[in-house]
Amino acid sequence: TFTVGIDSGSTTTKGILLEGETIVRRFLCPTSFRPATSIVDAWETLRAGLDEKPFLTLTGYGRQLVDFADKQVTEISCHGLGARLLLAQTRTVIDIGGQDSKVIALDEQGNLTDFLMNDKCAAGTGRFLDVISRTLGTQVEHLDAITEGVEPHPLTSMCTVFAESEVISLRSAGIAPEAILAGVINAMARRSAHFISRLSTQGPLLFTGGVSHCATFRRMLAGHLASDVFTHDDAQYAGALGAALIGQRQRKR
Amino acid sequence: TFTVGIDSGSTTTKGILLEGETIVRRFLCPTSFRPATSIVDAWETLRAGLDEKPFLTLTGYGRQLVDFADKQVTEISCHGLGARLLLAQTRTVIDIGGQDSKVIALDEQGNLTDFLMNDKCAAGTGRFLDVISRTLGTQVEHLDAITEGVEPHPLTSMCTVFAESEVISLRSAGIAPEAILAGVINAMARRSAHFISRLSTQGPLLFTGGVSHCATFRRMLAGHLASDVFTHDDAQYAGALGAALIGQRQRKR
Ligand code: SF4
Repeated sequence: TFTVGIDSGSTTTKGILLEGETIVRRFLCPTSFRPATSIVDAWETLRAGLDEKPFLTLTGYGRQLVDFADKQVTEISCHGLGARLLLAQTRTVIDIGGQDSKVIALDEQGNLTDFLMNDKCAAGTGRFLDVISRTLGTQVEHLDAITEGVEPHPLTSMCTVFAESEVISLRSAGIAPEAILAGVINAMARRSAHFISRLSTQGPLLFTGGVSHCATFRRMLAGHLASDVFTHDDAQYAGALGAALIGQRQRKR
Repeated sequence: TFTVGIDSGSTTTKGILLEGETIVRRFLCPTSFRPATSIVDAWETLRAGLDEKPFLTLTGYGRQLVDFADKQVTEISCHGLGARLLLAQTRTVIDIGGQDSKVIALDEQGNLTDFLMNDKCAAGTGRFLDVISRTLGTQVEHLDAITEGVEPHPLTSMCTVFAESEVISLRSAGIAPEAILAGVINAMARRSAHFISRLSTQGPLLFTGGVSHCATFRRMLAGHLASDVFTHDDAQYAGALGAALIGQRQRKR
């Protein structure tokens, strides 16, 4: 039996087609200013050619923007479920997306015990890396290649706006852009470690969301936490995966 | 006897030449990336042509960048003193500058009883108005003319970075720029009122710093506080004025 989960995030729309607990199709597109259209795109792409209409579960910011879903579930529940499918023993999820970040604590059975969410301040989210990368004339996708093996230059400001000015003045003081970028990633990783430490959490910790693709960030986060940070190729789909799983479980009953 | 006070802020450098308690000269320039040079400029301009070297007190972020001052004092003490010279009964000072904001509580005699400072988040500072004004193709100086009598459009985001995106999407949804700008000022005034309410304060309240020049902001702040908000033509000089006053008092002893 097929089920679809769509995670309508403010930056990226993610979708998963599941058969049992196996991922059959993935969908990912920028949400930009058309979240409803992105959900429709995801839905049409994921169900294309299937004989029966799959059970559809929606999650994420935009989940209430369309009316054709079978179910709507909060991100926190979906992320926890999806994380456990990616790494069965996961006890803590740190999800850093384009415009929010969350930390989720799970018990041994995978039940949610606590969580924290930030969607008010750009500094703890992918947007921070995005803004600073652009200021230095590059893109988030290139951060790993640029910062590999580079000693980070210390950054004082944590506010995205103030950090942007600081980065410009560091550049005009002749500091190399790669050292600045490594410093920016390090400052944000330190902040994320602090965010995680506000919950009482246990390992294993799974890192999900768009920022989890950045290997330099993962390495620095692990350093600040003094613990392992796991991730998965499908880590950005954790929410959509959890949403699709909810459909599978509902069908079983 | 002449004394000079210079307030080296991160956005603007302000200076005052006092004779007794009378302002004889004012100096104001953008600090940009040369705070020490701005202090030297202020000092040379304010003392020019005087027979004796006036007593010099420095305050503000950059106060330790030069070594020719007679005294260095924290902003908080100087602002309190300066505010009382501008409005003798002042019990609360709200100072909103280019990159920080502070609220200062004074007792009946003008002694500092409590204060709060924000220099970590651009959202509560002049930078917020600056960024959004530029996004809409205008400048802070024009905000009063643009927003006079305009009904504010509600703004959801308080983070400068997220507000910038929201403003762009409101524009593309056809909302008039003047309504957006009025909404932006209103959102920030609400936030400032909340910031002030975190201290237990009493009136009269004097509004100082660069943002105090914005009449729309003052009016909206008064609305959110449900109390009078006083200001003064020299409100941006409160810190420098307080610094110059410290010199006068020291000389008297
Ligand atoms: S303005 Fe800066 S510190 Fe404030 S909420 Fe936005 S990113 Fe965070």
